[in-house]
Amino acid sequence: MKEFQGWIDENFATVREDLFTFLRFKTISSDSSFLAEHKRCIEWLCNYFRAIDCRSEIIETCGLPIVYAEDMHAGPKAPTLLIYGHYDVQPVDPIELWKSDPFEPVEKNGQFYARGAQDDKGQIFYAMAALRFIRETHRQLPVNLKFCIEGEEESGSTGLAKALPKLKEKLKTDYLLVIDFDMLDAATPSINLGARGIITLEATLRGSNIDLHSGSFGGIAYNPNRAAAELIAQLWDENGRVAVPHFYDDVDELTPHDKSLFSKADSHFIKDAGIEALGGEKGLLSHEACWFRPTMEINGISGGYTGPGFKTVIPAETRIKISCRLVPNQNPDRIGQYVKDFLLKKVKKGIHLIVDIQHGGKPYRGQADSKLSKAVGKAYEDLFKKPCQKILSGGSIPVVADLMSVLNSDVVGMGYGLAGDNVHAPNEHFGVDRFKNGIFTVARAIEYLGVL
Amino acid sequence: MKEFQGWIDENFATVREDLFTFLRFKTISSDSSFLAEHKRCIEWLCNYFRAIDCRSEIIETCGLPIVYAEDMHAGPKAPTLLIYGHYDVQPVDPIELWKSDPFEPVEKNGQFYARGAQDDKGQIFYAMAALRFIRETHRQLPVNLKFCIEGEEESGSTGLAKALPKLKEKLKTDYLLVIDFDMLDAATPSINLGARGIITLEATLRGSNIDLHSGSFGGIAYNPNRAAAELIAQLWDENGRVAVPHFYDDVDELTPHDKSLFSKADSHFIKDAGIEALGGEKGLLSHEACWFRPTMEINGISGGYTGPGFKTVIPAETRIKISCRLVPNQNPDRIGQYVKDFLLKKVKKGIHLIVDIQHGGKPYRGQADSKLSKAVGKAYEDLFKKPCQKILSGGSIPVVADLMSVLNSDVVGMGYGLAGDNVHAPNEHFGVDRFKNGIFTVARAIEYLGVL
Repeated sequence: MKEFQGWIDENFATVREDLFTFLRFKTISSDSSFLAEHKRCIEWLCNYFRAIDCRSEIIETCGLPIVYAEDMHAGPKAPTLLIYGHYDVQPVDPIELWKSDPFEPVEKNGQFYARGAQDDKGQIFYAMAALRFIRETHRQLPVNLKFCIEGEEESGSTGLAKALPKLKEKLKTDYLLVIDFDMLDAATPSINLGARGIITLEATLRGSNIDLHSGSFGGIAYNPNRAAAELIAQLWDENGRVAVPHFYDDVDELTPHDKSLFSKADSHFIKDAGIEALGGEKGLLSHEACWFRPTMEINGISGGYTGPGFKTVIPAETRIKISCRLVPNQNPDRIGQYVKDFLLKKVKKGIHLIVDIQHGGKPYRGQADSKLSKAVGKAYEDLFKKPCQKILSGGSIPVVADLMSVLNSDVVGMGYGLAGDNVHAPNEHFGVDRFKNGIFTVARAIEYLGVL
Repeated sequence: MKEFQGWIDENFATVREDLFTFLRFKTISSDSSFLAEHKRCIEWLCNYFRAIDCRSEIIETCGLPIVYAEDMHAGPKAPTLLIYGHYDVQPVDPIELWKSDPFEPVEKNGQFYARGAQDDKGQIFYAMAALRFIRETHRQLPVNLKFCIEGEEESGSTGLAKALPKLKEKLKTDYLLVIDFDMLDAATPSINLGARGIITLEATLRGSNIDLHSGSFGGIAYNPNRAAAELIAQLWDENGRVAVPHFYDDVDELTPHDKSLFSKADSHFIKDAGIEALGGEKGLLSHEACWFRPTMEINGISGGYTGPGFKTVIPAETRIKISCRLVPNQNPDRIGQYVKDFLLKKVKKGIHLIVDIQHGGKPYRGQADSKLSKAVGKAYEDLFKKPCQKILSGGSIPVVADLMSVLNSDVVGMGYGLAGDNVHAPNEHFGVDRFKNGIFTVARAIEYLGVL
């Protein structure tokens, strides 16, 4: 710890400078106009790995490329650890709410502000910095280390998922460490043993050939905004349960171990976010809902004129973006079909509804008593001097289940994210102290993995 | 008629050139970034009136200016006719659906394409061209003629409405002719004896301080998109009636004369627009609904991410734009308050709802047997060789009721618009033949008004 403190004091300026370079690349994966930025970013990443004595390469996929790096000098008898993260980021809309340029990082009040400052550039970069720390303090790596940093986590991981069968040998590992998670809260060290799956759908309701004048057609045409609202309103029953038939069919009952996890969890984060109205199923604790129950959300709706002033139209169409978060045993494609069937059945007759089932990702669970789980837990405990909690995530990292299945590997998730970091929102930020703790935790976990 | 044909054959090229100049001004009144375009447009209009021997002036208001022009040479014993129209236009979104630049007019397949080609630049400009025709064929004006062309019809007519008391003397008239209307259909001449009123509201539902990650907060926070949908779904009952208490309190029973109007009207325009699902109250004929019944429409809704790809957010807020069309005896402000009260009462508890009641306009009715009604009717009949229908409009020209009240004047509406002209939508257009007929009809109506 002392040695780490000395190293970080001496080298933090350059670490920070490199992080800022990484954050400046506009690697929004859902928008193909940023392809050149992705290219520049992956080249920079490869060079960075080479500078810290790793073999690195760009793996092309049917989507955006993967950055792969390895140091196999620990030899065939030592265990192998694969670290997964992503270099792509979410879109920046609504851009007008950002207090500084999302792609020009700034440090303010102990936080780094930028799109990706936390999710996931900031988090994966502290793992890279951990390797630099290990190198510069002349430690031997006690394990073989691999990095897989993909570029489509925020838009479905299609490229990596499709390339996986071919990459089975290259990515072969004993342990998979996914660094893209939140802590329970700022004072509580925690490792993550699972995330929800996801399926997304886009629905378009069409009522007429063109936008109509609401004076000529008001009270005559059925407004697709109204049809969309009436459709959405039917998606939940009076108990807050999703009303789509078979939606909960494959959801497991909670085990006593499951229940032991969230009974410890608190919910101050709800108040912190300014939330007063609660959604979801009635009678559930917040972490029970978030970790163990599937949900459905309307992530976007738009129809008609929504700019400044007024335009008295009946829009030709209204669009809805829907996502469902899923728990173990639920099949994303099947749930997507259930939702689609329900929408098509319930939509106002005469309104043309097109439902497009988009990408899905399976939920997964890691083992609580694995060597990696213990190693990461002890690393956290060295820093926080208190027991490391085992938690789950309500979010989704669709490719993790695929990685686990193809590589036949157990998984642990870690991260220093907090619910208030504004990931996926304007003014994303990440605590400088948490970033530094991340460097220490990864380095220490690697050491423990070699001796446990 | 022959004389007109000769004149139009000789002069149409310059009339068309002037119309296109008029259409090029980007006079979108709801967006203040177009102020300079408005200024250039009104100067051009004033100069045009001077060129056809009218006294013209720009009347400043608290909003956008009014163009006023007059020829009072008929003298105090002759009747005075005030022609009302507007030079402002609707916004052009969604711009990507326009097949040509909305502000670069083109003539194609017998239609003029441009924003404002019909509503209302094309329509008011044929009245100006009618005066040019009268001048150039050396006729005497048998009436005193005034033009009032305002710049805020599409955004509430606030400037003109507020200036009206001061303009009472200047605009004093025996007859008010509003040129901003549709025909019943292309083959049926019709004059308009009334329009609906309007009240618009903007509602914002807020569920949290910032956009939330739907993984962390899905199933926990109440999504304002869902709350908005559930709120909208409550606005109508199972019979398609607006469910807001007192909404219909002041609506009159239909008179036999009222019923005689719409029984003649047909509804092929509904199929033409590709409408299969009908909204509004059950059991009403389309023109009964559109002309004699109040309605409510959701003109715009937006919440969350609606761009390309996916962003799994629970938005901090969802916005709705609502308008109600009103019939005689309904008070716009009172109806706005009823709707606001209903929304505040019905919104999900814990979701913060702000409702902003915006501009309103009163409905009005003209007299079927006035001199102006007869004069315009006969002008149409000369052209179409069949009886002119008397119809109403489901749209709103909020300032007409104000003009009638301040000027103590009767009103007739006319126009050559058709439901398929895409006013307020992409690819607005206006038939060249209808434009020419407009010139003839206005010139002929002025002649009849002098002799009837």
